[in-house]
Amino acid sequence: MTEKTVIIGSGPAGLTSAIYLSRASLAPVCFEGFIDGGVAGGQLMTTTEIENFPGFPEGIDGPELMSRMRKQAEKFGTRLISEDITGIDLSVRPFVIRGSATSVEAHSVVIATGATAKKLGLPSEPKLWNRGISACAVCDGGLPVFRNQKLVVVGGGDTAMEEAMYLTHFASEVFLVHRRDAFRASKAMQERVLQSPKIRVVWNSVLEDAEGDSSLQGVIVRNVATGERTRLEARGLFYAIGHQPNTGFLKGLVEMDDEGYVVTAPGSTRTSVDGLFAAGDVQDRHFRQAVTAAGSGCMAALECERWLCEKGL
Amino acid sequence: MTEKTVIIGSGPAGLTSAIYLSRASLAPVCFEGFIDGGVAGGQLMTTTEIENFPGFPEGIDGPELMSRMRKQAEKFGTRLISEDITGIDLSVRPFVIRGSATSVEAHSVVIATGATAKKLGLPSEPKLWNRGISACAVCDGGLPVFRNQKLVVVGGGDTAMEEAMYLTHFASEVFLVHRRDAFRASKAMQERVLQSPKIRVVWNSVLEDAEGDSSLQGVIVRNVATGERTRLEARGLFYAIGHQPNTGFLKGLVEMDDEGYVVTAPGSTRTSVDGLFAAGDVQDRHFRQAVTAAGSGCMAALECERWLCEKGL
Repeated sequence: MTEKTVIIGSGPAGLTSAIYLSRASLAPVCFEGFIDGGVAGGQLMTTTEIENFPGFPEGIDGPELMSRMRKQAEKFGTRLISEDITGIDLSVRPFVIRGSATSVEAHSVVIATGATAKKLGLPSEPKLWNRGISACAVCDGGLPVFRNQKLVVVGGGDTAMEEAMYLTHFASEVFLVHRRDAFRASKAMQERVLQSPKIRVVWNSVLEDAEGDSSLQGVIVRNVATGERTRLEARGLFYAIGHQPNTGFLKGLVEMDDEGYVVTAPGSTRTSVDGLFAAGDVQDRHFRQAVTAAGSGCMAALECERWLCEKGL
Repeated sequence: MTEKTVIIGSGPAGLTSAIYLSRASLAPVCFEGFIDGGVAGGQLMTTTEIENFPGFPEGIDGPELMSRMRKQAEKFGTRLISEDITGIDLSVRPFVIRGSATSVEAHSVVIATGATAKKLGLPSEPKLWNRGISACAVCDGGLPVFRNQKLVVVGGGDTAMEEAMYLTHFASEVFLVHRRDAFRASKAMQERVLQSPKIRVVWNSVLEDAEGDSSLQGVIVRNVATGERTRLEARGLFYAIGHQPNTGFLKGLVEMDDEGYVVTAPGSTRTSVDGLFAAGDVQDRHFRQAVTAAGSGCMAALECERWLCEKGL
């Protein structure tokens, strides 16, 4: 039996697609398993508190929000398969999507496998992740625990500049740690950062570890030129060293940019493969918010539904 | 005193912008009043049940969802002004935004005034609005009350074809009422509609009225060629005769398309005026969902925050 549509991924983009497609009685199959480092439920599964998803004035836990979306998708008839994707064949019609145990044929596919924040691999990283260490200043920087505290950002590109500037709204001081003696970021952003009275750039330096038991209390920085080690007192450590879109299984099958993000038509979720749509962080390097991912998941569902309708499928 | 940013509009786009901008400590001012036919809270204020906003598996009332977003925006420091906008001056810096009583200067503005569904002006329209009459098949078509019922769509363009096809997922039969003897829609969509065994086109016909007390029970159709009146039994009546973006107050001030939608850069909320951003239905003729509006409201907030930061404002 050929399915109308398969969704790969179960973060806000995948599940919002599932809510819309199942509510349209298309009975989508959603592979919610692990994909190229992604996790079922997406990045919010390791997020303790979300203050900015619209509709939850008291905030909501990441896993709780995803559980609610999952329940909503199932309510309308989404069939969830908790398996990893092992391969996808887009050269045949219908497409073939292979899970670790189940193989499914489908006329259309929504890719919503997300992206994974790059990590530094610090010894204390697993212990302090979401207990002071975050990969998203916009998501987490506004949390009460970070307000009027010293915070550390690691990175040297545009995102690092943006996140450091963003954190000046809350922090008493922002240390921007960069391993070289110059930034890759645009001149304009660099100037803003260098002029900010709240940002102190720590050049030529790498992080060796983070300190703290139940929450981050400081970081150890090593100057790569002198070898000198310094302890910086800080309550927050924000990685801005990039994300890796979870698209390894799509390599060579669909147009991607040089970092592996799926390329979509402007203002659309259509990809270079007719009938293949992409939503959420897998195609978005700029915004990366739960609500923007959800919005694009909705777009993918509507475009997919219209595509199936036009093709008479 | 010059504000950093003013948001005009208080639907999902405006309030999500407000949540993000206020959480970034930018203390935005949000004009939530009536604008060109828009209402405070936006189109969801007249929506009784929303089943597809992700995160609410049991569904949520439109006014309740907007009240929650409003509370969330206020919690982070958004200052709501319940006034109508009487004018905006984008030719000076800072911009000047005039409410009916309050005038505000601001470095940046987010336009989120939405769009208003065109109505037919049937005698029973006010009574049966949201009691069987809807302007959004994707939003409301999946509600239990419409499942396995006869439904009516009015219109002849692409949206009408899409909505009629969409409703075939639920309806026992769809009457597509069009005042002419040919559709304006694309050939492909027309063919699908004409081939659908569930859709019956009622050509050369206009609606005279809808029937029902607490909910829609039928519609009266008049053939404009013969003058003949027919009653169609139906539980749902979906207008697909277009929307009017609420942009009258912006005429000549910012680039718009020929229907009055604000033009934004692809994948962005930037407009032709530097420092002016647009989010939600005021710039989206295609998707028009609460969650897509919220997503673009988030984008506007992040782009606005970065713009202010780059300008050192």
